[in-house]
Amino acid sequence: MEQFEYYNPARIVFGKDKELETGRLVKPYAKKVLLHYGGGSIKKNGVYDRVVASLRQEQIEFVELAGVVPNPRYSMVQKGIALCKEEQIDFILAVGGGSVIDSAKAIAVGYYVDPSVDYWETYFMTGKPAEKALPIGVVLTMPAAGSETSSGTVVTNDETHFKRSIGGECMIPKFAIINPENNYTMPKYQISCGCADIFAHLMERYFTQVSHVDYSDRLLEASMKTLIHYAPLALEHPCDYDIRAEIAWVGTIAHNNLLDRGRLGDWGSHDLQHELGAIYDIYHGEGLSIMFPAWMKYVWKENPERFVQFAMRVWGVDYAMEDPERTILEGIHQTEVFFQRLGLPIRLHELNIDDTHFREMAEKLLVNREYAGNFKHLTVDDAYNIYCLAK
Amino acid sequence: MEQFEYYNPARIVFGKDKELETGRLVKPYAKKVLLHYGGGSIKKNGVYDRVVASLRQEQIEFVELAGVVPNPRYSMVQKGIALCKEEQIDFILAVGGGSVIDSAKAIAVGYYVDPSVDYWETYFMTGKPAEKALPIGVVLTMPAAGSETSSGTVVTNDETHFKRSIGGECMIPKFAIINPENNYTMPKYQISCGCADIFAHLMERYFTQVSHVDYSDRLLEASMKTLIHYAPLALEHPCDYDIRAEIAWVGTIAHNNLLDRGRLGDWGSHDLQHELGAIYDIYHGEGLSIMFPAWMKYVWKENPERFVQFAMRVWGVDYAMEDPERTILEGIHQTEVFFQRLGLPIRLHELNIDDTHFREMAEKLLVNREYAGNFKHLTVDDAYNIYCLAK
Repeated sequence: MEQFEYYNPARIVFGKDKELETGRLVKPYAKKVLLHYGGGSIKKNGVYDRVVASLRQEQIEFVELAGVVPNPRYSMVQKGIALCKEEQIDFILAVGGGSVIDSAKAIAVGYYVDPSVDYWETYFMTGKPAEKALPIGVVLTMPAAGSETSSGTVVTNDETHFKRSIGGECMIPKFAIINPENNYTMPKYQISCGCADIFAHLMERYFTQVSHVDYSDRLLEASMKTLIHYAPLALEHPCDYDIRAEIAWVGTIAHNNLLDRGRLGDWGSHDLQHELGAIYDIYHGEGLSIMFPAWMKYVWKENPERFVQFAMRVWGVDYAMEDPERTILEGIHQTEVFFQRLGLPIRLHELNIDDTHFREMAEKLLVNREYAGNFKHLTVDDAYNIYCLAK
Repeated sequence: MEQFEYYNPARIVFGKDKELETGRLVKPYAKKVLLHYGGGSIKKNGVYDRVVASLRQEQIEFVELAGVVPNPRYSMVQKGIALCKEEQIDFILAVGGGSVIDSAKAIAVGYYVDPSVDYWETYFMTGKPAEKALPIGVVLTMPAAGSETSSGTVVTNDETHFKRSIGGECMIPKFAIINPENNYTMPKYQISCGCADIFAHLMERYFTQVSHVDYSDRLLEASMKTLIHYAPLALEHPCDYDIRAEIAWVGTIAHNNLLDRGRLGDWGSHDLQHELGAIYDIYHGEGLSIMFPAWMKYVWKENPERFVQFAMRVWGVDYAMEDPERTILEGIHQTEVFFQRLGLPIRLHELNIDDTHFREMAEKLLVNREYAGNFKHLTVDDAYNIYCLAK
């Protein structure tokens, strides 16, 4: 186990009708709020009305910025920064899923970046940590990204087609309101994509080369087993509170950094997916359900024991004493079967993506960094080979 | 799953030599610190010297208050409050285990209690939540109580022999420094008592009547399984960093409230042990290793399914289809075997405690409350019967 710090001061407010407490939670921080959201689904399911009523009840002034899209855009971030300055905003309220929250975080940090500095090049393209941000609050409508209590944001530059992340404690939201009822109206495919994202967050942390990390291994296994049980049930019973609550709670814990203290996660599959997402406008979750199994097949020999443990403890595969490789491959196969059961693709051709951009994506992956992934340090050739395995 | 809030802003700083960062961590909060510790073991193992050097390096002034004993006393708390006022202290640094931290927390809260109010009667005897406290920091020397990031404190009144707790977010330490190396010099019996305390914290949370709490069930099982594996190893290899690190990390997470969100823990066994501890000056952990199995035998019929799950998932007991009670009793037996393997008592007579005070303890347990425990609401007679089962 490596040395670590853990600090997460986000207040999680979880349960039915909790969005009605938005005003109370915003009040200590804000005079004037930027209400940030996506394509308007929150207007259809009533979340918008309840949040706005709660803000009005506390006499909190707000300005709206709608229209965040999946793979949130840097152009929207720039628009948000300008709006916050113009309107003298002192708090950003993100109402939505990971894209909206990530957009809000990027605006919150960008607000304090010296206008003479190129925000994108200085931070996103170098990974320079964010040091100051406007305070943020979240009303979560979709369990997936875990951004509601995390310290990071991922943004796509719509001009350069780079998808990059930055991190910093200052971005951890002050509060995250999680009402699983607000997930009932999610389309089934969105539920699946969200679960794949959560599962990928757990696997990214699980596949580490750091040894003596048994406790966090077990916490990660507990989280994966919960998701394996409940994700298919959520598709069958989309309006069952108890099922949705389990998934929502896993989704938050999976990405609040608790589960990777003392270890170094991989994140290669996320990076490979980010390059896909920057070129093809696919859902993050479906990109992950394709890239993760391909990555696993390519890298397992770097630490077979870890893949044996994954197969045995997460999937209940028996240990094949005379041929442990069979245990490993069965664990990877079970992972694919799980994604398929959720109706997700596990090969690129299922999304009509061919090898046209494989080399380009592999090269972009390595721009401004020596390698991608920590479990195995991926080169351009490695990345290209993994895209080929995913074909 | 019930609705919940989760908020824990303690900064955990974990790893070798981390006590050398004490000064850096105290600095933002303090001009003058109360350095609070126990019987002086920190002087023998060098922790005191390293902490003091770190404070001096940052030019932080401090006043010492030593002498905290296990089952920390209210008289010491009163002494600490007076000292803090006299010396104009603005930060309390607890260097030690749960007793020192709990004493520090009680001083921190009492500092702000109106002197015209009887602090003990108004807070401890009623459970009134604490609302304001001096900031606290912790250098942990013993994984057990989990008080280093928890929001509660337990204190014994040396005049009335009541042992009672209070809670409140204001008591959550600003930081907790955890260096597993500082546990190497703990006597073996102390290691065992600490592990029993941690295990009890997990079981108190596990035995709930709230349904649909699968994810936290699994996180608790993961925590228990880690402890079951590493506690005996720590006795065999007391200076193995990796073993001590697993236990220390479980000890903190077990009690930082994350694992009981959305559920209501029991805490009857802790309350039964507190009455024991108020009369007999025994270690908290050895009281728990006796009272918990007795409590289990007395209450399992209130929710046999939960005890079946405990036996199967935590201890790997097979399900006895034709007689599930055998599965349950085997799970309880395995719990006793675990405590015995750690060299702990599982019956009161092993500590030379007879039935002299059983009725008195059972009655005191119910003073100022309608019942003890949540899994089964214990009456005076129930408590008496459980003490008899533990004889």
